[in-house]
Amino acid sequence: MALEGNVLIGQSGGPTSVINSSLYGIITEAKKHGFIREIYGAVHGIEGVLRKQIIDLRRETDEVIDGLKRTPGAALGGCRYKLQDTDMGTVFRVFDSADIRYFFYIGGNDSMDTAARLNKAAKEQGYELRVIGVPKTIDNDLPETHHCPGFGSCAKYVATSVREAGLHTASMYTSEPITILQTVGRNTGWLPGASALAKSQEDDAPHLIYFPEIAFSIEKFLEEVEATYRRVGGAFIVVGEGLKDARGEYIEVQEDDVATDAFGHPTLGGVSEFLRNAIEKNLKIKARNIKLDICQQAAMHFASLRDVNDAVAVGKAAVDAAASGLSGFMVTLLKEEAATGLIELEKVANVERKVPVEWMNKEGNFVTSDFLEYAHPLIQGEARVLVEDGLPVYARLKKSFIQL
Amino acid sequence: MALEGNVLIGQSGGPTSVINSSLYGIITEAKKHGFIREIYGAVHGIEGVLRKQIIDLRRETDEVIDGLKRTPGAALGGCRYKLQDTDMGTVFRVFDSADIRYFFYIGGNDSMDTAARLNKAAKEQGYELRVIGVPKTIDNDLPETHHCPGFGSCAKYVATSVREAGLHTASMYTSEPITILQTVGRNTGWLPGASALAKSQEDDAPHLIYFPEIAFSIEKFLEEVEATYRRVGGAFIVVGEGLKDARGEYIEVQEDDVATDAFGHPTLGGVSEFLRNAIEKNLKIKARNIKLDICQQAAMHFASLRDVNDAVAVGKAAVDAAASGLSGFMVTLLKEEAATGLIELEKVANVERKVPVEWMNKEGNFVTSDFLEYAHPLIQGEARVLVEDGLPVYARLKKSFIQL
Repeated sequence: MALEGNVLIGQSGGPTSVINSSLYGIITEAKKHGFIREIYGAVHGIEGVLRKQIIDLRRETDEVIDGLKRTPGAALGGCRYKLQDTDMGTVFRVFDSADIRYFFYIGGNDSMDTAARLNKAAKEQGYELRVIGVPKTIDNDLPETHHCPGFGSCAKYVATSVREAGLHTASMYTSEPITILQTVGRNTGWLPGASALAKSQEDDAPHLIYFPEIAFSIEKFLEEVEATYRRVGGAFIVVGEGLKDARGEYIEVQEDDVATDAFGHPTLGGVSEFLRNAIEKNLKIKARNIKLDICQQAAMHFASLRDVNDAVAVGKAAVDAAASGLSGFMVTLLKEEAATGLIELEKVANVERKVPVEWMNKEGNFVTSDFLEYAHPLIQGEARVLVEDGLPVYARLKKSFIQL
Repeated sequence: MALEGNVLIGQSGGPTSVINSSLYGIITEAKKHGFIREIYGAVHGIEGVLRKQIIDLRRETDEVIDGLKRTPGAALGGCRYKLQDTDMGTVFRVFDSADIRYFFYIGGNDSMDTAARLNKAAKEQGYELRVIGVPKTIDNDLPETHHCPGFGSCAKYVATSVREAGLHTASMYTSEPITILQTVGRNTGWLPGASALAKSQEDDAPHLIYFPEIAFSIEKFLEEVEATYRRVGGAFIVVGEGLKDARGEYIEVQEDDVATDAFGHPTLGGVSEFLRNAIEKNLKIKARNIKLDICQQAAMHFASLRDVNDAVAVGKAAVDAAASGLSGFMVTLLKEEAATGLIELEKVANVERKVPVEWMNKEGNFVTSDFLEYAHPLIQGEARVLVEDGLPVYARLKKSFIQL
């Protein structure tokens, strides 16, 4: 099974705090195998393959490779390119000229689709290639895995922000009583749900959580906000960015205003601003909104150590799977820390795992204890970053491009 | 000068990460003086005086008092109430019945106005009262002090967020090349300016910074963003929330839409959303925006140790000043850590200190090295918080109300 050849690693989709922890895991594990010669990185994922922008990762220092374990952003560059059938010729010419025999793609649902198609195309063409997908998404919406690397750190940052901004809001109930925090996570409620970890006493933030899984009613929302305000003196509300009404339309945009990305997904922005206006206009209560946006995916300064360890583990497991002769699989995470499994790429590509209905309360405005028991272990431990001059210091690849 | 009587402490305006560090400083210093009998806290600042909501801080445990040093939000409750002349009778009846002889007010410009008026009214009425203002504002806009407690921690969090979100953005230049981060700070550019601390190499984030001090031109902005995008491949932009055009009007709102708070200040929201739309519409480049909002004022999980120490110092210095017989002053901070001075309240009330013109570059879109030398010491050191179960744990006052 010892296939001689080179490794190519790509990062795809939006970065997470720990996407480079998986890159670290792949590189360090690949270095252990004598039959793996070169270890390359594609700059901006599959786009880098198409543009022949490939770097030599063996030319990076050990210090930089080690630093990847705690560096946000995608060190190789991410992408949102949807691979076309007409691209396949170019891809395999590049693979062939660089003698790529192992392809590791770190990404989410869309990226697993790309990996699956490359695996299929290689088989059809008789090109010997082992393709393994490495999961990554703060959305936590990949199926067939207990959880996704990236989610734990994002959940920890969101819960920390809600606890802190919740204390701030509670101390200003007499003048600025309502705060709405908007999480990322396109169509699933994993991140708004995780904000519930911030609550330790009954009237702590968050008071109300709204999930993309549940049809949103503005009338019900305003009633619940007003009731909370009457009872507590204020309200801290967490909303997923992709709330939809009963007709399935995003609540803050007119149908023809929905912008879409290259995969046809709507790109969302302003639900918290929309709801803030709705509260001020209808309830005549002052409200604030917080849109942490990509800070959620990049907050390595307070990342989950459990998440870092899981992310390293999926990288290592991907190399082990490929080294043992497998192809066409994605690594999965089990319930225990750094424990991994495998699943066929076809079973995860383009599938979204939503929050189970029974993990949200009957009113559809909070999580149940099952959700909390699931999420709690994933935010444990603090990934220490290097701090110099008062700020975190992160690794930077020097990027030695190879000639093709 | 040993005036026997009770202490009353209030917190006013929006909280900062370290507003309770000053509360800790006042309480611990007050406990050292035998002639200070009771140490009370007004719930929601001067509003708590008017409503007779006053708590006994000697009934809090040492553990809770110590925890205040690293707890965000205003533990006593903040307020935005503008003291009316007609309120003075009630205030002094409450002061008299609780035998308040020392009044410490932790706040910003507006709060120093309240403190100055109380000091004047006490003198006019012949009520023996020592009033000392304790500075607090992430805006860093109080005059006559080298810097303000709260600014350093906010600056550290903003610079950290810009460094992290900047790495994220740079790794996505081929698909989502532009990010705009909006800081708080009503009319001054101290916080957008401090984001420049994140830059360690020329093309690092932030690339462009826009200050409320400089009249904003949307045409110039779009040209500069496009030029940066052409040169770097993307752009990370930081903007103050209160950008105004050459006519002095907030750029994102129509004149009649400007909401105002109780002090007549406009309450601002959406400049980054406005600019994101302007970029997408005019330059046809995908852009994101980040609105950290009150997370900036509450991020004790990565606060500046220098800032905590300064905040404790101004609290202690306030007690020392009052104990020595002074009244009608605000404590100031000097350049050196935890070094304090005093200034008459009248000289700071309602005055805003802006970023000096020579600390912004000629193009008005970045800071100079003078600014960086000023801000750099203020973000040094990490204030360690207690972490339990993966999240920071903060102190909570039990709040024993006194009978009046």
